[in-house]
Amino acid sequence: MVSKNQIKVIASLQQKKYRALHQMFVAEGQKVIQELIDADFELVQLLVTEAIFESVVSDKKTLLTAAELQKISALNAANNCLAVFKIPEPKPIIEKGLMLALDDVRDPGNLGTILRICDWYGITQLICSEQTVDLYNPKVVQATMGSIARMHVHYLDLEDFLNQTQLPVYGTFMDGKNIYKATLPEEAIIVLGNEANGISQSIRKITKNKIAIPRFGSQTESLNVASAAAIVVSEFRRGFSGK
Amino acid sequence: MVSKNQIKVIASLQQKKYRALHQMFVAEGQKVIQELIDADFELVQLLVTEAIFESVVSDKKTLLTAAELQKISALNAANNCLAVFKIPEPKPIIEKGLMLALDDVRDPGNLGTILRICDWYGITQLICSEQTVDLYNPKVVQATMGSIARMHVHYLDLEDFLNQTQLPVYGTFMDGKNIYKATLPEEAIIVLGNEANGISQSIRKITKNKIAIPRFGSQTESLNVASAAAIVVSEFRRGFSGK
Repeated sequence: MVSKNQIKVIASLQQKKYRALHQMFVAEGQKVIQELIDADFELVQLLVTEAIFESVVSDKKTLLTAAELQKISALNAANNCLAVFKIPEPKPIIEKGLMLALDDVRDPGNLGTILRICDWYGITQLICSEQTVDLYNPKVVQATMGSIARMHVHYLDLEDFLNQTQLPVYGTFMDGKNIYKATLPEEAIIVLGNEANGISQSIRKITKNKIAIPRFGSQTESLNVASAAAIVVSEFRRGFSGK
Repeated sequence: MVSKNQIKVIASLQQKKYRALHQMFVAEGQKVIQELIDADFELVQLLVTEAIFESVVSDKKTLLTAAELQKISALNAANNCLAVFKIPEPKPIIEKGLMLALDDVRDPGNLGTILRICDWYGITQLICSEQTVDLYNPKVVQATMGSIARMHVHYLDLEDFLNQTQLPVYGTFMDGKNIYKATLPEEAIIVLGNEANGISQSIRKITKNKIAIPRFGSQTESLNVASAAAIVVSEFRRGFSGK
């Protein structure tokens, strides 16, 4: 059984300030939960409805009703399980290989999708400006489809970080060089900007390598930031894809 | 003033069956509405709050309160305007150039994002299986950010269509040929599959050219379908991007 107080605490984890206070976050659905457990995230509690209770093997499992689960779920239609995990200690940043940096990406779905793209392309480190949406926002966790378990995400002062790095810094700008004609290195930091405003002025100044995804005769003003991430990362990796 | 009955009809347009019945759909926000008007979509009614009423020039405009607007809006936080448009007559399909075909894409955000990708890359025709989410779903209209105004979208029996086309048919499969090593034609139909199940068996059989986006050493099972669309379309276009 779960107590009313436990339910209150878990529901509060939908908000960033309570995640920071308790140093815990919520994941929903068997797939995401299993991937986090496999990646050694510390499980605090596993709440499971009767539908799957018997089949779940865990000393942290607790039974709850579908109605109770829906109350604490961030989803419109709750799954049959929800887990509370400890937020892990941040790992040190290793400035090596290909990395992504997000300059104030605000939409949880976009951050989640970008994590999946990184995971697919073997990028394990993501740098986020402090104004970027929180990694442990339940909508981000959900949109990653489990990729969150394999990524190291760092929140920091992006300007300071980019000023000190030895890696070449790339960013997408309307007036950048055609990415399809550019020679791209194996190691770099790729900066992606905010949904409405793109890359900020202060970061623009530090971004030495300005690239652009050419537009093919349309009047549209922009691509979604996750679409741009997919195209740019694909371009950086395509030369190294084996046979 | 808007009557209670008008509000009821407009609110009903959030559902596909009422859009089919009235042959009308809703768009929200000045940018999307303006792009639809510019593209000669037939405006039925323009509902505007006091905040911008004076600045809007249209003989179809009607004043309503912010509370009334929120009631009929599909958005969590309504904008200051909402428009009702006639659903246009479908244009004939011209089997030429690069086209996308969606095999049961269900998420409105994905369809909207895919329309933006098409628009950016100068693809104007999109074929959708009958089970694909409806183009005029308010979340699709919103996610297109105006690109809906420039796209021709056709719902039909995808198997029949692909069986008769003269264009080469490409599709993404886990066991396909590395897309980065393939020689891709300027004219083709690219099939993208359902979020959970990929391309269906019956469509797989007709898809002669099976391609894959290589994975770089990760365990993740899939990319989001809109991310895959961005990468595949970019690959088809990159050879034709000018200087």
